[in-house]
Amino acid sequence: MSESSVISHQSSVAEQPLDGEPVARVLVAGASGFTGALAAQLVWAHPRLELARVTARSEVGTPLERLYPRYRVPLALEELDPDRAGDCDAAIVAYPHGAAAPVVAALRERGLKVVDLSADFRFRDLDEYRRWYGDPAAPELAAEAVYGLTELYRERIAGAELVANPGCYPTATVLALAPLAERGLIEDVVVDAKSGVSGAGRGGGERLHFVSVDENFTPYGTDGHRHRPEIAQELKALGADVPLTFVPHLLPIDQGELVSCYARLRDPAGGDLEELYRERYAAEPFVELTDQAPGVREVRDTNLCRIHVVREEGSGRALVFAAIDNLWKGASGQAVQNLNLMLGLAETEGLE
Amino acid sequence: MSESSVISHQSSVAEQPLDGEPVARVLVAGASGFTGALAAQLVWAHPRLELARVTARSEVGTPLERLYPRYRVPLALEELDPDRAGDCDAAIVAYPHGAAAPVVAALRERGLKVVDLSADFRFRDLDEYRRWYGDPAAPELAAEAVYGLTELYRERIAGAELVANPGCYPTATVLALAPLAERGLIEDVVVDAKSGVSGAGRGGGERLHFVSVDENFTPYGTDGHRHRPEIAQELKALGADVPLTFVPHLLPIDQGELVSCYARLRDPAGGDLEELYRERYAAEPFVELTDQAPGVREVRDTNLCRIHVVREEGSGRALVFAAIDNLWKGASGQAVQNLNLMLGLAETEGLE
Amino acid sequence: MSESSVISHQSSVAEQPLDGEPVARVLVAGASGFTGALAAQLVWAHPRLELARVTARSEVGTPLERLYPRYRVPLALEELDPDRAGDCDAAIVAYPHGAAAPVVAALRERGLKVVDLSADFRFRDLDEYRRWYGDPAAPELAAEAVYGLTELYRERIAGAELVANPGCYPTATVLALAPLAERGLIEDVVVDAKSGVSGAGRGGGERLHFVSVDENFTPYGTDGHRHRPEIAQELKALGADVPLTFVPHLLPIDQGELVSCYARLRDPAGGDLEELYRERYAAEPFVELTDQAPGVREVRDTNLCRIHVVREEGSGRALVFAAIDNLWKGASGQAVQNLNLMLGLAETEGLE
Amino acid sequence: MSESSVISHQSSVAEQPLDGEPVARVLVAGASGFTGALAAQLVWAHPRLELARVTARSEVGTPLERLYPRYRVPLALEELDPDRAGDCDAAIVAYPHGAAAPVVAALRERGLKVVDLSADFRFRDLDEYRRWYGDPAAPELAAEAVYGLTELYRERIAGAELVANPGCYPTATVLALAPLAERGLIEDVVVDAKSGVSGAGRGGGERLHFVSVDENFTPYGTDGHRHRPEIAQELKALGADVPLTFVPHLLPIDQGELVSCYARLRDPAGGDLEELYRERYAAEPFVELTDQAPGVREVRDTNLCRIHVVREEGSGRALVFAAIDNLWKGASGQAVQNLNLMLGLAETEGLE
Repeated sequence: MSESSVISHQSSVAEQPLDGEPVARVLVAGASGFTGALAAQLVWAHPRLELARVTARSEVGTPLERLYPRYRVPLALEELDPDRAGDCDAAIVAYPHGAAAPVVAALRERGLKVVDLSADFRFRDLDEYRRWYGDPAAPELAAEAVYGLTELYRERIAGAELVANPGCYPTATVLALAPLAERGLIEDVVVDAKSGVSGAGRGGGERLHFVSVDENFTPYGTDGHRHRPEIAQELKALGADVPLTFVPHLLPIDQGELVSCYARLRDPAGGDLEELYRERYAAEPFVELTDQAPGVREVRDTNLCRIHVVREEGSGRALVFAAIDNLWKGASGQAVQNLNLMLGLAETEGLE
Repeated sequence: MSESSVISHQSSVAEQPLDGEPVARVLVAGASGFTGALAAQLVWAHPRLELARVTARSEVGTPLERLYPRYRVPLALEELDPDRAGDCDAAIVAYPHGAAAPVVAALRERGLKVVDLSADFRFRDLDEYRRWYGDPAAPELAAEAVYGLTELYRERIAGAELVANPGCYPTATVLALAPLAERGLIEDVVVDAKSGVSGAGRGGGERLHFVSVDENFTPYGTDGHRHRPEIAQELKALGADVPLTFVPHLLPIDQGELVSCYARLRDPAGGDLEELYRERYAAEPFVELTDQAPGVREVRDTNLCRIHVVREEGSGRALVFAAIDNLWKGASGQAVQNLNLMLGLAETEGLE
Repeated sequence: MSESSVISHQSSVAEQPLDGEPVARVLVAGASGFTGALAAQLVWAHPRLELARVTARSEVGTPLERLYPRYRVPLALEELDPDRAGDCDAAIVAYPHGAAAPVVAALRERGLKVVDLSADFRFRDLDEYRRWYGDPAAPELAAEAVYGLTELYRERIAGAELVANPGCYPTATVLALAPLAERGLIEDVVVDAKSGVSGAGRGGGERLHFVSVDENFTPYGTDGHRHRPEIAQELKALGADVPLTFVPHLLPIDQGELVSCYARLRDPAGGDLEELYRERYAAEPFVELTDQAPGVREVRDTNLCRIHVVREEGSGRALVFAAIDNLWKGASGQAVQNLNLMLGLAETEGLE
Repeated sequence: MSESSVISHQSSVAEQPLDGEPVARVLVAGASGFTGALAAQLVWAHPRLELARVTARSEVGTPLERLYPRYRVPLALEELDPDRAGDCDAAIVAYPHGAAAPVVAALRERGLKVVDLSADFRFRDLDEYRRWYGDPAAPELAAEAVYGLTELYRERIAGAELVANPGCYPTATVLALAPLAERGLIEDVVVDAKSGVSGAGRGGGERLHFVSVDENFTPYGTDGHRHRPEIAQELKALGADVPLTFVPHLLPIDQGELVSCYARLRDPAGGDLEELYRERYAAEPFVELTDQAPGVREVRDTNLCRIHVVREEGSGRALVFAAIDNLWKGASGQAVQNLNLMLGLAETEGLE
């Protein structure tokens, strides 16, 4: 974003800090956007992965660190040439919805394992996809894609060639509600979600101009947001096919996302919710329960999801709050988490 | 808050910009806090009111403009002496809960009309007050106090000697829900509220240190917030004695408050909600309906409440969003609005 | 900036709050940008001016209050047609540099008094203009234009038909240094300037995206900024033709500007600087001296310039700090201040 | 700062991620403040150091991660007992000025190597210390202390038992000016410095309340700041005993510091400044030159100092801009950098 660029790097900087022979050579496509750039940075700093190429549809030839001085990736952006991508083992694709599918298809043809950050392969029901995003460009790949919410589908992800990385809101919301949904405890649910501006991407024009966002706070998508059907699909897959209200709001911060979930319970007088959540997530390296509602600042620049659950006696509702960094667990961090599994690495490698 | 102070005022500045003979001499007690200081500023700039005294429990002798250079009140803070308050006709009291009641009682004894910003006289049921705030200090005054949500109780406020100014969250929430509540349309309701930091007051220690709040966003009061029973009381008074969930969150901004209300409707297929709201608030000078959800920046430094209502077909809920400036319509602006009525002035005087 | 729009205005809102018969009908050209929109709002709320038209080169037909819900101007943007502008008495033009001059020329031909916010008529030396901005489009008008730093050129402004409103940095800097410059006290001077993002305008692309600016702070124009020659011209006009270093920085705030001036003095041991400044600005309604360095928040949404001066014994320098709101005293506020003078009104009308 | 706390840590979290046998056991004293807490976090995450104890003068018994959920240090704060500190090899002391010296003396007596973050041992001239901070508490230790600006005193630091870590402003300023000062090129210099709020520490009361800082920007210490004599001492040590003006300003951000240095040159027409800086810092792992002025966001959460230098032809000045993270290179990061040297480790260990 800034135009300053380092002119005095130590030579050591130009080499990746690899820990022995890399396990895979990774291409990041769409690295000029927020999530693609962070994916490139995470792969660059990963002890077992080699960042082979970074590509983009604009600003070809520009070193990534000039676009993102806050990151440290000295590679220059290339144009994506699938025919030359065969020297890579895997790819993270960070293209907009619709544009992603053809690129994913081309990379899959060359045998690369792919984690796709777009919505193009997230929907099990292509009609539902069509309703929100238009005609799917590579419907034949939908069947092989695994929905990449790691904590729910770990084993299938480990065996997948194509992973559809979840949206940021679905990630936080489904993690927040899964323990209730799996037990059939939800009657209906309201999800009031808030995200930092990086979740809206690098474009956005005047709506994301500093002056528009600063000291402001605004609901959006109140007539229907694309993440709603994705959340509904996942809750339904867990057994909770229930009325769902989902409203996102724009926070005047850079990174960070909080979902506040209000679930009317089937069994209002039932068991210890905190205990239920604790057991459900006992083995999860990136899910932490907190004894009070978490602030988004706690999880900034981490792959953590921090959750607080409390039963409200008067209303018979469970209140569940989940905080993530929308760029990490909500996008590129989870992408690397999934890629680790697909490549046989420890899930946490490069993310701590 | 800053320590800089003007040393070269024009002589004209030291005089209030009054428009003819003032209608009343007004004392502002507790003027060193955020709401008291704004109340003093609004009275100072009011064309028909004379700001007679500003008092505080600390920093006596300091000109108010030294504490708040952003305001322009050259009066020095005095210690409150009720015996000398008899030269005033009215007072706005901005003391903390519990400390306010004795001051209000003393000023009422001297015949002043009072708008009280604390919770001390807001509750019709003293037991409910006791549950959240402790023993009431002046229970005998409770009966004469009128709840100061102007749009609901305008006539009673005009005839009142003591007005209990509502909390900021109750103001926004009850304005958002009144049209539904009055028609008996609400089955249950979730209120997800967000406020800027000035709503938490001038104290607060490390919790409100810039570093704690900046780039953060946190729910609070998840085990019960004092504004919940106040909202419940008012909804019930309108006929909506229904399950209510209320959770506030802290926004990393100075001024501004948004409540997102999710009301399950008794009659999901019923009439035009926008039309209902439009009619209900057609004559209100400070309530405006918007065709999309409002951002809090739109109402900053105004006494406006902007509301957007939309029916969600799938869930049978009404989504209602209301934005106010917590220091204005949520506190000192509404106090002046009420004081105008109590003194026979136009409600909007000094607020546009 | 936001897209929400009020649908329930009181009828009273659609009329300007005029105080008797208006003195002039005013057109604001370029009202879709930050400074043009504020100029429209200030004229709208002005007790003696009628806002006749608001025009823009894009978004014609859109009510201004839809683009800027924080303002309250219900007029719709029109295309500028100079031939129909004859029904106006005066205009404020808020076009980009280069584009402004032809518009100003066309309005002057129809007899309108004009305050121009661009740099097109600020330079006495057209070669200097050419060096920074390119060929002047209406060089014949340069001679009649008066530089609109009100505190320096009040009388000439009162008699002018065309006023070139100063840049925001020159306004703060020249006010900060004028008392020293007029006495010939400056040997050389460093000006370290900082401005909020609204000073950079509504465009700006990724450089002004929230994510680029938030939690950041960056110098810019370090190889030469256009406001430097304008400052140099004005200091020279006051007698201070001295080495000048000027570096602006971008603050992560909306509105507000501070210049920190470090002037090496000709007479380091000389008189009382504070006294000098106090006398110089004793009669100025919008210049205030403070006993400590001012924060920009103090002058937000005001036409004030607050100045603090201190002599540093060790270095023989005067340190002078001046804070303004870049959109008000740095642009549209000063434009109205000048327009008041040109129309024979009190300078402060509509600005307090 | 927040009160939420994790209740479901994986067991692995409670152990440090050490890379083999640790080289030293480290105590962090004063870990409840901003710099102490970050020092604890850096030692905790350090592959070769064991975080043995964290102590504080308040909140004893509280796990550090409860005070700072953004960090991950599960150790509880202890009261400092020097007699039990003998099981440690080294300490980082983050006490306020004046309070630090006795603690440092006690730890030195038990044989610990100490990096002290206070000003207590920074001054070579005790009278200068006395003038700004009062009587030194352990003057006998002053002689053995080495000033810890790593890039200037690397070898002496490696052999030191006690290192006085520099102030944040002196760190950035001296790194910015050293290449010029060492060559005797500076005639005089103005340093306009800006720091995020974390530089002012965890206390601060209303001055650092979110509402005081938000959307504000204020100069401070304009009548003399304690970092000025420290900068003067270090410039003089490099040969530049010249007039120095230093004015800090408070930025409305959390972490980040920029110094803008305006140095009048002895030899205005002389050599290539960029080349001079490039050579001077060619071997430095944490100093990077940039081709444009750096933004503070680029170096956030890093130990980097990014510098941009440009010669201004007209004024004969060098403009030098240096950006650091005040908590990292300006405090705790540099402390670990120094500790690494004192313990024979690579300087960059645990800091990349």
